[in-house]
Amino acid sequence: MIPTIAWRDDRVVMIDQRKLPFKESYVVCTTLAQVVDAIRKMVIRGAPAIGVAAAMGLALGARRIRIQNRAAFERNFQRLCDQMASARPTASNLFWAIQTMQQVLRDHPQASGEELKELLRLKADELLAEDQAINQAIGQHGQAVVPNGATVLTHCNAGALATAGYGTALGVVRAAWETGKKIQVLADETRPFLQGSRLTAWELQQENIPVILITDSMAGYLMSQAKVQLVVVGADRIAANGDVANKIGTYTLAVLAKENKVPFYVAAPLSTVDLSVTTGKDIPIEERDPQEVTHSLGRPIAPPGVTAWNPAFDVTPNRLVHGIVTEKGIARKPYKRSLKTLKQKRA
Amino acid sequence: MIPTIAWRDDRVVMIDQRKLPFKESYVVCTTLAQVVDAIRKMVIRGAPAIGVAAAMGLALGARRIRIQNRAAFERNFQRLCDQMASARPTASNLFWAIQTMQQVLRDHPQASGEELKELLRLKADELLAEDQAINQAIGQHGQAVVPNGATVLTHCNAGALATAGYGTALGVVRAAWETGKKIQVLADETRPFLQGSRLTAWELQQENIPVILITDSMAGYLMSQAKVQLVVVGADRIAANGDVANKIGTYTLAVLAKENKVPFYVAAPLSTVDLSVTTGKDIPIEERDPQEVTHSLGRPIAPPGVTAWNPAFDVTPNRLVHGIVTEKGIARKPYKRSLKTLKQKRA
Repeated sequence: MIPTIAWRDDRVVMIDQRKLPFKESYVVCTTLAQVVDAIRKMVIRGAPAIGVAAAMGLALGARRIRIQNRAAFERNFQRLCDQMASARPTASNLFWAIQTMQQVLRDHPQASGEELKELLRLKADELLAEDQAINQAIGQHGQAVVPNGATVLTHCNAGALATAGYGTALGVVRAAWETGKKIQVLADETRPFLQGSRLTAWELQQENIPVILITDSMAGYLMSQAKVQLVVVGADRIAANGDVANKIGTYTLAVLAKENKVPFYVAAPLSTVDLSVTTGKDIPIEERDPQEVTHSLGRPIAPPGVTAWNPAFDVTPNRLVHGIVTEKGIARKPYKRSLKTLKQKRA
Repeated sequence: MIPTIAWRDDRVVMIDQRKLPFKESYVVCTTLAQVVDAIRKMVIRGAPAIGVAAAMGLALGARRIRIQNRAAFERNFQRLCDQMASARPTASNLFWAIQTMQQVLRDHPQASGEELKELLRLKADELLAEDQAINQAIGQHGQAVVPNGATVLTHCNAGALATAGYGTALGVVRAAWETGKKIQVLADETRPFLQGSRLTAWELQQENIPVILITDSMAGYLMSQAKVQLVVVGADRIAANGDVANKIGTYTLAVLAKENKVPFYVAAPLSTVDLSVTTGKDIPIEERDPQEVTHSLGRPIAPPGVTAWNPAFDVTPNRLVHGIVTEKGIARKPYKRSLKTLKQKRA
């Protein structure tokens, strides 16, 4: 498995997800600004992967701080955190990772700047390793809801490439597959960025898990024909009440699943759950460049000058969600209680 | 307005809709086989336009029959009809046009082959002109349901390019615009063939009717944000009970419209209503080449060797349809009665 993101000496290396599956190329970052740029331009994407990249970017940035004294280091580090926070607005994990890195400073009030640099690097390494373990645990909990023989519909890419490895929604698929269940995956292509056709199809192909590609507009028809037994998607941010922000098109699948009585599950680490946000209405939805919609893989698909909208995410109301699969178990309705309980549960 | 299809001397000329809006080129047909091929390859598409093309193709083919006697002419003509019927399976108008042309022979039992050739050409001309008038009438009936200030969502292209001119769903939009209503259109791009981004956006741009392009996955989110006041789509075949076969993705919009309490209308000529088909279950759904899904405008968007499905249409159950706008008025539930009544109504 090609790693999504890794250290190579003192540089952060990411596989360029804009180019996959046509080209396997890598972006090498030596500064925080380069990591911010890579997140913004979607070299790396997927909420858990963004969280890991943010932590690694901050560790990278911290190394460049010319230390005068502890107070100066803290001020400089805070500026790096502010810069990182501006990368993308929706994924909870970005802000969670920043807070986790800030906590390192609070946990070591006596540490010198040099020591903090080392501690931040260790924390970033820890988050990277932890994310893989979390995904495996999500897979273990989630595979129980996958019926043998099922066709599982997913949207976007919530796979190894969206995480430090293994995946959330695709982690559930992988775990079910590893237990020997005969399943196949229906992958929505996921316009405009085509994470489904480019990344999910490619990931599953690599492991010989059967995958069938469809356009985003076909999922409803196939559900109406009883060709889908389960929907599993990832999440970019989950509000305290269980409303789920995820890649644009997710809400549509949830409505179609309800109409056709197909179970609809979300798989995400608890770092995606943001208890400070009461409902989905308070989750900021990123609007991206309309050119992503007027073009496909950089090539125009519409007449010049046409206006386009490009909201990158939507919000699925909690009532449409059968369960939220986390590393500590599956949260069920009412989510306000179950999510809080899981967040507080010791590993 | 560029005509979708026209006679040029004794040839049938169509604007090549595969190339729009990037290139304005034309396909010239001198034989029935060329017209069949153009329909199959979607040089021309849209149920009413397919109907007109079929009639013109049969008139073209009839001219080439070397007449021995009336019986021989009839046998030859029947072969042409069979060939035309194989072009595409879903659009009702194709079969309706073939039947209409066959009726010419029945209506003139004494006519010679030479006379029949002329009569068939006249009938094809009549269908071409009639389709434009029908669309205008659909527009007049339909514009009444468009609120002033509305954002109207449409799917695929049910515009001038899908008909002999003016359009069905876009005919409703045009008529509302012509009465001075301030409206704007949300156009789904409509993967895989991109009729929305390529054709609908282009058509509306030409007439300065405000249009905003979105991906197919965005319609649900925008409905949930109360950004859509009306959905109007065309149809490829309507069963006697009001179930509607239309471009893949239409069913999804109807489900989303119900969930968000947005009126969902279908606009189509009565030639699209097939009373011989009881329900949508009996409408054949064309499956097209998976390469349309693994590619976009001929360029790969997925890893080589990936499996894909490509159903070209879906069926929207009658209960999700607020009204069917025809040239003789708007059919309402129960459709079994209203559609039959409208079909029998004198113009």
